[in-house]
Amino acid sequence: MIFDRFLASPEVVRVLDERAFVQAMLDFEAALARAQAGAGAIPAGAAEAIAAACDASRFDVDAIVVEGGRVGTIAIPLVKALTAAVAKIDAEAALVVHWGGTTQDVLDTAQVLVARRALALVDRDLSVLIPALLKLADAHGDAPMLGRTLMQPAQVISLGFKLAGWIAPLVRAQSRIRQAGAAALQLQLGGAVGTRAAMGEHGDAVAATMAASLDLRLPPAAWHTQRDELVSLGCELGVLAGSLGKIARDISLMAQGEVGELAEPSGGGRGGSSAMPHKRNPVAAMTALAAAVRTPQRVAALLAAMPQEHERGLGNWQAELAEFGGLLASVHGALAALTLAADGLQVFPDRMRRNIDALQGLVFAEALAMRAAREIGKSDAHHWVEGLSKEAVSSGGHLRDTALMALARDERLRARLPAAELAALFDADAPARHASALAAPQLAALAAHAEELRRDPPWQTHL
Amino acid sequence: MIFDRFLASPEVVRVLDERAFVQAMLDFEAALARAQAGAGAIPAGAAEAIAAACDASRFDVDAIVVEGGRVGTIAIPLVKALTAAVAKIDAEAALVVHWGGTTQDVLDTAQVLVARRALALVDRDLSVLIPALLKLADAHGDAPMLGRTLMQPAQVISLGFKLAGWIAPLVRAQSRIRQAGAAALQLQLGGAVGTRAAMGEHGDAVAATMAASLDLRLPPAAWHTQRDELVSLGCELGVLAGSLGKIARDISLMAQGEVGELAEPSGGGRGGSSAMPHKRNPVAAMTALAAAVRTPQRVAALLAAMPQEHERGLGNWQAELAEFGGLLASVHGALAALTLAADGLQVFPDRMRRNIDALQGLVFAEALAMRAAREIGKSDAHHWVEGLSKEAVSSGGHLRDTALMALARDERLRARLPAAELAALFDADAPARHASALAAPQLAALAAHAEELRRDPPWQTHL
Amino acid sequence: MIFDRFLASPEVVRVLDERAFVQAMLDFEAALARAQAGAGAIPAGAAEAIAAACDASRFDVDAIVVEGGRVGTIAIPLVKALTAAVAKIDAEAALVVHWGGTTQDVLDTAQVLVARRALALVDRDLSVLIPALLKLADAHGDAPMLGRTLMQPAQVISLGFKLAGWIAPLVRAQSRIRQAGAAALQLQLGGAVGTRAAMGEHGDAVAATMAASLDLRLPPAAWHTQRDELVSLGCELGVLAGSLGKIARDISLMAQGEVGELAEPSGGGRGGSSAMPHKRNPVAAMTALAAAVRTPQRVAALLAAMPQEHERGLGNWQAELAEFGGLLASVHGALAALTLAADGLQVFPDRMRRNIDALQGLVFAEALAMRAAREIGKSDAHHWVEGLSKEAVSSGGHLRDTALMALARDERLRARLPAAELAALFDADAPARHASALAAPQLAALAAHAEELRRDPPWQTHL
Amino acid sequence: MIFDRFLASPEVVRVLDERAFVQAMLDFEAALARAQAGAGAIPAGAAEAIAAACDASRFDVDAIVVEGGRVGTIAIPLVKALTAAVAKIDAEAALVVHWGGTTQDVLDTAQVLVARRALALVDRDLSVLIPALLKLADAHGDAPMLGRTLMQPAQVISLGFKLAGWIAPLVRAQSRIRQAGAAALQLQLGGAVGTRAAMGEHGDAVAATMAASLDLRLPPAAWHTQRDELVSLGCELGVLAGSLGKIARDISLMAQGEVGELAEPSGGGRGGSSAMPHKRNPVAAMTALAAAVRTPQRVAALLAAMPQEHERGLGNWQAELAEFGGLLASVHGALAALTLAADGLQVFPDRMRRNIDALQGLVFAEALAMRAAREIGKSDAHHWVEGLSKEAVSSGGHLRDTALMALARDERLRARLPAAELAALFDADAPARHASALAAPQLAALAAHAEELRRDPPWQTHL
Repeated sequence: MIFDRFLASPEVVRVLDERAFVQAMLDFEAALARAQAGAGAIPAGAAEAIAAACDASRFDVDAIVVEGGRVGTIAIPLVKALTAAVAKIDAEAALVVHWGGTTQDVLDTAQVLVARRALALVDRDLSVLIPALLKLADAHGDAPMLGRTLMQPAQVISLGFKLAGWIAPLVRAQSRIRQAGAAALQLQLGGAVGTRAAMGEHGDAVAATMAASLDLRLPPAAWHTQRDELVSLGCELGVLAGSLGKIARDISLMAQGEVGELAEPSGGGRGGSSAMPHKRNPVAAMTALAAAVRTPQRVAALLAAMPQEHERGLGNWQAELAEFGGLLASVHGALAALTLAADGLQVFPDRMRRNIDALQGLVFAEALAMRAAREIGKSDAHHWVEGLSKEAVSSGGHLRDTALMALARDERLRARLPAAELAALFDADAPARHASALAAPQLAALAAHAEELRRDPPWQTHL
Repeated sequence: MIFDRFLASPEVVRVLDERAFVQAMLDFEAALARAQAGAGAIPAGAAEAIAAACDASRFDVDAIVVEGGRVGTIAIPLVKALTAAVAKIDAEAALVVHWGGTTQDVLDTAQVLVARRALALVDRDLSVLIPALLKLADAHGDAPMLGRTLMQPAQVISLGFKLAGWIAPLVRAQSRIRQAGAAALQLQLGGAVGTRAAMGEHGDAVAATMAASLDLRLPPAAWHTQRDELVSLGCELGVLAGSLGKIARDISLMAQGEVGELAEPSGGGRGGSSAMPHKRNPVAAMTALAAAVRTPQRVAALLAAMPQEHERGLGNWQAELAEFGGLLASVHGALAALTLAADGLQVFPDRMRRNIDALQGLVFAEALAMRAAREIGKSDAHHWVEGLSKEAVSSGGHLRDTALMALARDERLRARLPAAELAALFDADAPARHASALAAPQLAALAAHAEELRRDPPWQTHL
Repeated sequence: MIFDRFLASPEVVRVLDERAFVQAMLDFEAALARAQAGAGAIPAGAAEAIAAACDASRFDVDAIVVEGGRVGTIAIPLVKALTAAVAKIDAEAALVVHWGGTTQDVLDTAQVLVARRALALVDRDLSVLIPALLKLADAHGDAPMLGRTLMQPAQVISLGFKLAGWIAPLVRAQSRIRQAGAAALQLQLGGAVGTRAAMGEHGDAVAATMAASLDLRLPPAAWHTQRDELVSLGCELGVLAGSLGKIARDISLMAQGEVGELAEPSGGGRGGSSAMPHKRNPVAAMTALAAAVRTPQRVAALLAAMPQEHERGLGNWQAELAEFGGLLASVHGALAALTLAADGLQVFPDRMRRNIDALQGLVFAEALAMRAAREIGKSDAHHWVEGLSKEAVSSGGHLRDTALMALARDERLRARLPAAELAALFDADAPARHASALAAPQLAALAAHAEELRRDPPWQTHL
Repeated sequence: MIFDRFLASPEVVRVLDERAFVQAMLDFEAALARAQAGAGAIPAGAAEAIAAACDASRFDVDAIVVEGGRVGTIAIPLVKALTAAVAKIDAEAALVVHWGGTTQDVLDTAQVLVARRALALVDRDLSVLIPALLKLADAHGDAPMLGRTLMQPAQVISLGFKLAGWIAPLVRAQSRIRQAGAAALQLQLGGAVGTRAAMGEHGDAVAATMAASLDLRLPPAAWHTQRDELVSLGCELGVLAGSLGKIARDISLMAQGEVGELAEPSGGGRGGSSAMPHKRNPVAAMTALAAAVRTPQRVAALLAAMPQEHERGLGNWQAELAEFGGLLASVHGALAALTLAADGLQVFPDRMRRNIDALQGLVFAEALAMRAAREIGKSDAHHWVEGLSKEAVSSGGHLRDTALMALARDERLRARLPAAELAALFDADAPARHASALAAPQLAALAAHAEELRRDPPWQTHL
């Protein structure tokens, strides 16, 4: 459907499309045949004849999908077509096509094979996005900006502190996805009911050889209706989408015309509008936010599909197959969009400072109250500042000025709290420095961890 | 993605695919140009030049989708391409392509246009499925069968009674979907912020003409961020999927080898397995159950996307566009599968009766207790039957025989309750007749309502 | 759980709490007994003895719920406790407690009875919220403000136009919920498998009498596993939550410190913070947004629970019972919060205007281009305005001033486009008036429809 | 709400109820005060005065929740009430109640503290359920039974093989939940915007002391809007619910009257019905299946809530707080029910064998074809068996007998395939032994892993 593709990346669409999936199914069949030849279960020549035919470009993918819908599984028409193709070359070999495998073996393994490529894209782009954000923290990390809570300005933080909050979940996601992927990317080979009965004594050897040749984990048992490891991986992808959504939400809020602290890059017609020249639509944030709406539902579908009946599920398994691909596409769509945007993200530190200033110093009320408390006690300080704040709000003046005037009138305080010290409480750089100092070791640790992950990518060779 | 298509119907895929969507966008542009010419806002010749270019087969749909992903909307590259195509013929006309419309106008209206075709398929197939099930009720409605609660056999019903429970929600769904569709299938034409400002005084006339020419409802206002009518329609589609899922669940349970009361038709390789000749996989139920897992999540995504920001949403609107198509595809996939299956659904009344018999008459314990109560009071009757039931369970005998023997020993009861009358309580036909009598007027009313709906289909001309 | 209650309203918690539910179950039992007495199936005295005992305050609700969890249904321990209570007064009457009913009959009917009270609250508060928003449109409807698309300022609308977009979905929701409620609020009375077999010939009469006495719709059949009407009602509640979420999203965006166009009322400590005196947390928006996150999932759960097995579902039915209550609580929580807030919502028209002004006239670029096009053609006008916009952006000046200077330099245009007319294109009141004129008939129609609904409330007498 | 509790366990309700949550909030406040005293930020006497007041039984929990709903957070009324309580004893101490903390600090940390108790229950019960299932495998593991795919009988497996498929995901879940819990159970202490600015230089020391005293992980930064670790834990809980749902689905299918291979224990009125003495409702499966419907939606809500705005979310954070508790309650409800049931689960090996026999040997068709292939080639063997199967189906005879008769007529085969060997292919024990042999090492590894986990429980001391 058009919007599925619109919200994905061209790359991820390519690794997940119908042809790619059918090729992955054929890769399974070729590996199966060769492993069986290796175990002596079928002649080596037959295996080679089968493997030679396993090329998706020779099959009518469209017809296979349509016929698959009619008969209830895509595997049957593909195996039929493959058998026919092999038969033309080697009639004996045709008899052992798909021998001992079941439809779920080929479909689940193919799913794992295409998922690995999508995961490789996700992992690769995390290793681009994270450094790009770290670079932004390097460049502008000390810039004071408003921290905002419940969508209201609260107190001053720094951009570096905020960025640490964006980056940390991404680094953790990369770690967790690798770990979940290591468990979930496993061979499926169980035969009709998971016991590989048709393979007789060859079962273990065939499975081990196939796992090795496809570079997949060899599981202790078929996982036809034990989907926890796959779903756990899906969950981690969903969590990543959520963390990307958080970044996108912040970008979209900071990029509002009235806030103006950030803008997505806008080259080549991205996000612009000639009729409305002031617009700079945050289209990467848009894509990531769309994914943040959609992926929770994909994950829910995976979870809802888990109670699969007996040795192969009816309907729920098929739903899971469909939802998993959609999840991968959405997540990489979001990541690719933000990765592209992060590279050229524009930061406007002046505007950040102006937004602080526009609040008439009220964001420093707590700091003022705390400083005053040291002289006149918490209770009195609280009431004093509350009164000053109301005055500043109603007069439209700056709390600093209001406070300085009040200080001048207040004998008790005047003696203890120098005007310069009071004025300094309203310096936005002070809390920003505090925030940056807090963030610095975290950013350093994240950078180190990210670099370590970047150096040892697990799935890139399969792209 | 391959499994999305696998679980949809070829027909619904065709009305929702990328080319169909782009054509619907072009239909909007042609109607807009003509309506503006009609209002005197642009020259009639320009409108015809534009309309003539509005043929999807002339555009590179693939490139438009990819570029749309990059710039943030599919409408911009399409409008560019259309403008370029028009410019080749009529440079002046090219200046008024898409004049006064906004990207959301074209996308939302196109969505509505393709959705109408999908709804036409849904409506058409409901008008096939419902009569097929009614016919089944006609043919086998009186057959006694087990009613089952909490997945345990409970008491006897009839197949007709059960079928009424399948059919009624379908008829209601057809009604509700028509009603929701009548509200939701409306023109979108609001311009940049919903006010049609760019059209000046022509706005109302253009909108009215377009609504008429596209045969869509003319809404009282743009609904750029008021999605309730569309989402309400989506909900009703989700409810239909749930009702289809209920039928599919029952079919899958009744088709189990150990139950054997029903089988899906299996011609042409559907659901069969040569290695396992006893299998008759319920593949229509499978497709419908898959939809019942997926569609609740599509509906949730539509609902979650509703809080759209200001005058056009960021991310949530785009997510809704994508999810709505997926929902339509899933629902029609489920419906088409069950419609195909319903036609050849095999019913095994003998097996239904054998399944009742296998329960040793215990399903009639309540009837026995009630009859005995008339003679010896509820409390005594209850204890008597409880004892007999235990005896039947432990002996493996039939409760009727156990009860007849007990009756012969019981002086008080023997005089009042003739053995023949007691034996008759164990006649499965009696409760089945009661159930059928209850269902008969409901089935008649459903048949009449379904026929009325069938005769007046709302969207078939747009197929 | 604490946050469920925190996000609901005290009123809705009261009508849905455990005691209220148990009382509704007892109301069912009393109505059943009386209806059976009316049909001559049990003695009138027994019915009165049973009805007299049907007072939740006499039962240990806590113990009943815990024991219900153990045995698998709340109905069994309640019926046991009721039977014991009746037995103390009238041993014969105790034998006919719950006679002919099944656990699902009492639970579903009780659910409907408590849901009706929650719906009455929803309907009542919609009839308060809608007029409050209409009043706001009356008071400030003409105020010009920015329309914003994709979270960027776009063009000028009016507050009244925006409010119409908030109100219309609420009025539609009220209508649709009433309609869905009229279908879903129906008696459940089917006995063990839906056939009312245990009631023999009395079934129809008992059901009719009960429906009348409980003021519920009498359905054509039991709906033990036909949940479409209930779920359809749940969907409409979810759609309302989405529409409330849209309002809340807009409020939260407009109430941002940097936007400042709106503020929730803040009396009595609501949303304030003494440490941060500039904060005015939009707590009603918060509650509504929380509901907008949660309710889509409640609806999805209702839909997912629909494929219920045979004549009574295992697990899915019970899940639906739980989710429906949660949905009602969330929806009314959101509505009650916004209703409270709407009454004192503060609007800052000056700030709205300042936000327009801050965009240097760029929001009028399209108007300028359209006016210029009348003189120099679309293409030239477009390029001219594009150049001016870039100049204004880079200089930080106002587009109007930039344009006036350019006009003075441009001989061709100067003659045709008077400077005063050009300047007038930058008047925010003009598009606001246009928007308000567009909204006026819609607001009038909404007011009339809302008033009609308010005058004829369907469920208030059951509160 | 009544059904939330009905579907939870009394134990988990107790650790999550309103009083428990308020106590956890007070535990945070006491720990905060003491840690600040330790850092010299407040007087030790004040800390002790505060800590002494931190006893939930002294507060009006109900009033606090209601007032919390009104003002937008439960923390404010609790802190007010605590401050008032402390003020009665020590007016100075009252000034430093909640000093430097923000509402989110106390709420998030309290959430973590109550979640840990719920996790302790989950972990404890997994360490009971897993051994109970392993014991069942020990006792009946070799029993042959049907493997079933797509809800149709397929081939023979053994009960032990099936049980391994139930157990493995539980052991993995226990591991993954511990790992996710170790990350997610962390202190929240960030102050207004996450920088602990109000605590000045004491921040780090206070946080470290609090983490130690509450036995929580000390995170590298506040996680006010970085929810990935909490949500990842929620996901793993959802995956566990899915795996429990799979077991429950299988139990419900095997416990059907027509299948009869398994029954839940039914002591004390659980699942029984006196009117329907043949019923044995699988109520534990019911509870687990209800959770499997509900928990995917809880997880989706957690994920959907992730894009939290800036430094504290509006609505989404609050939704997450509510959903997390509901998730914990559902998951433990499901687990507790199955744990109770597993102990007394009845297995009927005779019925399992009868169910195989009822299929007329057709489940052995593949084995027959494979054996025949060794003599006459795959193609001929396939056709031969296909013919025999059709004959067996149409005659209602056993495939073994049909095959033996055919063998006698077939000269070519008769010579090579002894009748006794052919008959042995129809021995259900052979494939069961094969399945059990496959499962044996897996079961042994699972038992060892489970025992290791059982010996080192992470959170039991907090119960």
